[in-house]
Amino acid sequence: MPDTAATLALPAAFEQAAKALLGPKGWHTDADLCEAAATPWRGTYSGRTPAVAMPASTQEASELIKLCNAHHVAITPQGGNTGLVDAGTPHGEITLNLRRMQAVRDTDPFNNSLTIEAGAPLVNAQQAADDADRLFPLSLGSQGTATIGGLISTNAGGVAVLRYGMMRDLILGLEVVLPNGEIWDGLSGLRKNNTGYDLKHLFAGAEGTLGIITAATLKLFPKVQRASSWISCESPDDIIKLLALVRKHAGDTVTSFEMIPANAIDMVCQEMPDTRDPNPSELPWRVLCEISMTREDHARALLESALEEAFEIGLAADAVIAESLSQANAFWAIRESIPLCKRAFGTSINHDVSVPVSRIPDFLIASEAAVKTIAPEAEIVAFGHVGDGNLHYSACEPADVETPSLGSKAKAIVEAVHACAMQHDGSISAEHGVGRLKRDELAAIRPKAATEAMIAIKRALDPNGILNPGRVISAD
Amino acid sequence: MPDTAATLALPAAFEQAAKALLGPKGWHTDADLCEAAATPWRGTYSGRTPAVAMPASTQEASELIKLCNAHHVAITPQGGNTGLVDAGTPHGEITLNLRRMQAVRDTDPFNNSLTIEAGAPLVNAQQAADDADRLFPLSLGSQGTATIGGLISTNAGGVAVLRYGMMRDLILGLEVVLPNGEIWDGLSGLRKNNTGYDLKHLFAGAEGTLGIITAATLKLFPKVQRASSWISCESPDDIIKLLALVRKHAGDTVTSFEMIPANAIDMVCQEMPDTRDPNPSELPWRVLCEISMTREDHARALLESALEEAFEIGLAADAVIAESLSQANAFWAIRESIPLCKRAFGTSINHDVSVPVSRIPDFLIASEAAVKTIAPEAEIVAFGHVGDGNLHYSACEPADVETPSLGSKAKAIVEAVHACAMQHDGSISAEHGVGRLKRDELAAIRPKAATEAMIAIKRALDPNGILNPGRVISAD
Repeated sequence: MPDTAATLALPAAFEQAAKALLGPKGWHTDADLCEAAATPWRGTYSGRTPAVAMPASTQEASELIKLCNAHHVAITPQGGNTGLVDAGTPHGEITLNLRRMQAVRDTDPFNNSLTIEAGAPLVNAQQAADDADRLFPLSLGSQGTATIGGLISTNAGGVAVLRYGMMRDLILGLEVVLPNGEIWDGLSGLRKNNTGYDLKHLFAGAEGTLGIITAATLKLFPKVQRASSWISCESPDDIIKLLALVRKHAGDTVTSFEMIPANAIDMVCQEMPDTRDPNPSELPWRVLCEISMTREDHARALLESALEEAFEIGLAADAVIAESLSQANAFWAIRESIPLCKRAFGTSINHDVSVPVSRIPDFLIASEAAVKTIAPEAEIVAFGHVGDGNLHYSACEPADVETPSLGSKAKAIVEAVHACAMQHDGSISAEHGVGRLKRDELAAIRPKAATEAMIAIKRALDPNGILNPGRVISAD
Repeated sequence: MPDTAATLALPAAFEQAAKALLGPKGWHTDADLCEAAATPWRGTYSGRTPAVAMPASTQEASELIKLCNAHHVAITPQGGNTGLVDAGTPHGEITLNLRRMQAVRDTDPFNNSLTIEAGAPLVNAQQAADDADRLFPLSLGSQGTATIGGLISTNAGGVAVLRYGMMRDLILGLEVVLPNGEIWDGLSGLRKNNTGYDLKHLFAGAEGTLGIITAATLKLFPKVQRASSWISCESPDDIIKLLALVRKHAGDTVTSFEMIPANAIDMVCQEMPDTRDPNPSELPWRVLCEISMTREDHARALLESALEEAFEIGLAADAVIAESLSQANAFWAIRESIPLCKRAFGTSINHDVSVPVSRIPDFLIASEAAVKTIAPEAEIVAFGHVGDGNLHYSACEPADVETPSLGSKAKAIVEAVHACAMQHDGSISAEHGVGRLKRDELAAIRPKAATEAMIAIKRALDPNGILNPGRVISAD
C-alpha cells in the first residue's frame, strides 16, 4: 500500500456507510473544512483530504475504523493540528477529528487522576485539575489548541519535563480504537498494574499509526508555589555545572532550567520594544531556573543557598529572584517569545535536537564550528531545556541583510547539525516527533534492528495499513 | 509450539555449537546447577532445565539466541530467581543467566545517568549511584539478589514508587538481544527522544518473552534526607484522606506511605520478641509516612505541619517522628518483617492487588465480607503501599489452630478477592507480574482486544516462540 493509500475519490459504498454512521455533524466533505484540515498552523507544508470524520463517541470511532478496514480506506487522526513534522496532516487520507469528544469523564482527587476525552484541548485538563485542587503539570505554548489525544500520540514535552516527565509519563491509562476497529478499554487509574505488555506506552508517541486514542486517564499532582530566578552565566560548561549545583540544593524540585543566549534576548528586545533583559549583563548566557514546592519560602531558601554557592565558586555572576508572579511571568515571556521573534528577525534554520546534559558544552562548540564552515555568516541561536538536554538550535540571518545566503545552505546546515547531535550520542528529534518529515532520515540513522521491530509491530497490528500510513516508519 | 518447547534432550548439533560458542565458563549441564536454576527461592513450584547458559557478553548472548532460533530451542532468561509468578523458572527450556555480565559501563553524574549490565544485582546500581553522589531510588527486599535485567523485565515496584515510579520509569535506555538474535543498542542517556515507537517500554515488564535485556541506562536523582513518622489512625478512610493532606503540605516529596494494621504488628512482635510498636495505640491502623528532601529541616517542618492539621481535624490520633536514622529504620524493620512473620504465624492466602487509592476503603470492606463468607475463621492482614493503591492482602490462620481449615478454601478465597479487586477497578497483579501462574486468569479478565494485540506483537517479534514461551500470554 503506498503512503497515500486513499485517493480523493472515496469508494461510494464506504462514503455512504460513513455518512449514515456519523450523520451530518460527523461527516464533512465541504471544501473549506477539508482545506483547513489539510493545512497545519505553521503552513510550511500542506496536504489534501476528501473528508473529515468527527465521531461523537468511541463507539462511532470504532465503527468508522471497521468501515475503513473493510474498504481499505486510509485515515489520518488529527488533534489540534499544531504538529511540526507532518504527522497529522492528511495526504489523501480521510481525516479523523475528535473535537466532538471533549468530556471530562471522571475526576478522582484522592487517586490524583483525571479521565478526559482525547479531543479536549490541554487547557481543559489543566482547568479540570485545578478545579479539583490539583495540578496537571504539562504546559506548552499551544495548550489552548493542542489536544490530549495529539499530545499523547506525539509524546509532547514542554517546560516542566525536568520535574514531571514527558506526556507519556503523565498517563495512567488509555482508551484506544485499534486498527481493526476493536476498542481497548485501558482506562485504568492504577499506578501499579503488571498484567502484560504495557500497551499504553506503545500508543503514546506512535503518532496515530497504531491506534486512535479516544480518552486518557492522566496523573494529577499536588499544587505547588514557584520560585523563579534569572541568572547570568559565562558558558554552557558553567550552566550544566550550575544545574548540578541547584539540584544538589533543591533536589528534584527543580522544575525548569532553561538556557537563553544573550543574542536571543537582543532579538526579542528588538522585535518587542517594551521588553528588556530583567538583569542586563555583559555575560553571553542567561538561565531561567524555577523551583516549585508547596511552600514558597522553602523554594526561595533553596534557590538562595544554591545561588550563594554558585557565586562563591564562580559558576554564576549575577542573578535576580522574582519578587512577584508578574516578574516571574516576565522572565517566561522572554523565553516564550524567542521562536516568534526569531522568525521575525529573518531566516532561521531550526533543529530540535537533544544530547546528554553532560555533552551540551561540547555539542555547542562542535556544531557551531560545523555550521560556520558551511555558513560563516550564520548567527547561532541555541536555547531551550538544558535540564532535559533538549536544545532548540537555530542558524539565523537577519531579514535585512543585503545578499541573503543562508536559505540556500539550509540542507547542508541541517545535515551538519544532525550529524553533530548523533556524534554526541544525541537525537535529531527530541520532542517534535517523526511524522513524514523525519521518517527517512531517522530510518537511516536508527539501529536497523529497531526499525525492523517497529515495522513488524505495525504490520502485526495494522495489516491493511489504514492508520496514518507512511508516518513514523515506512511499512509498505 | 507447546509451552515447554524444548525437551530435556537437546539437539546434539545445538548443544555442540552452544558449548563451542560459550566455552566451559558459559555452558553448564551439571545437575546441581540445573536444579538450582529450576528452583525459585520460595520453592512453591519448581521446573527443570537441561542446561544453563552464561554468556560473557552481549555478542555471545546474540549468537546463542541465533543458535536457539536455528534449532528451535526455547530459552528462559533468569535474573536473581526471586520472582513470585513462575516467569523465570525453566520448564524444559535452557536457562539463560547473565551473572557474568555485571559491569558498570558508564556513570554520568551531570546527565544523572548510569549504564550497567543486566546481570548486576540492584545493590550494585545503588552503590554506583552513591559513589557518584547520586541516588538510584529503587529499593526492595531482595535487592542483594534481584538483578537489573530481572527488575526491568518484571517492572519491579518497591517502597518508593509514590515518589519515583516503577522500574520502567527509571530507565532511559536499554540494550536488548531480540528474539531473532539481533542486538538493539538502545542505550541512550537522553530524556527526550521522540524517534519512533518506544521499544524500551515494550521490553520492560515483558518478562523475557520479547527480548533479552543485556544492559540498561538508568536515571539517577539528587540525594535526599528523610523525615519518617509512625502515625495511628482509625480507619482506611482516614488514611487515604491523610495521604491527600500530607501531599497538600509536602507535595510530591512524600516518598512512602505504607499502611499497616495493628494485627500485623502483633504478628511481628510475637515472632520477633525484641520488637515493639514504636507508639502503641488502641487504634487499629498505623501509617509509615516518609518525606524526603534535600534539607531535613524542611522535610520535618512539612511533616509537622501536616500532622498538626491531621490532629486538628481528627484524621490521625497520635504520631511519632523519628529522631534518628536508627529510629526510622526501626519503623521500616517492622514493615519489612510482616511477610516473613506472617508465614511463620501460620497459613496465609496471599494476594498482590491494586485499586485506585480512592477505592481502598470500599475494597477492604467488600473483600473482608467476601472472604468471611467463605472462611469466617480467617484473619485479614492487609498492608502495603497505600500511596500506589497496592495492597498485600492476606487471609490468615494461626499454625497452632486445632482444626486447620483455611488451606482447603484457598482457591475460593483467591477468586473472591480477585473478583473484588476487579469490581473496584483494580488489578490482580500489581507488582509481581504474570508469569505462568497468573497467565490464564489474566487472559480471562483482560480485555480481549488487549490480549489479541499482545499475542500479535509476540508472534511478530518471536515467530518461532523461543523466548520464554508460555509466560505472560499463550501465543501457541
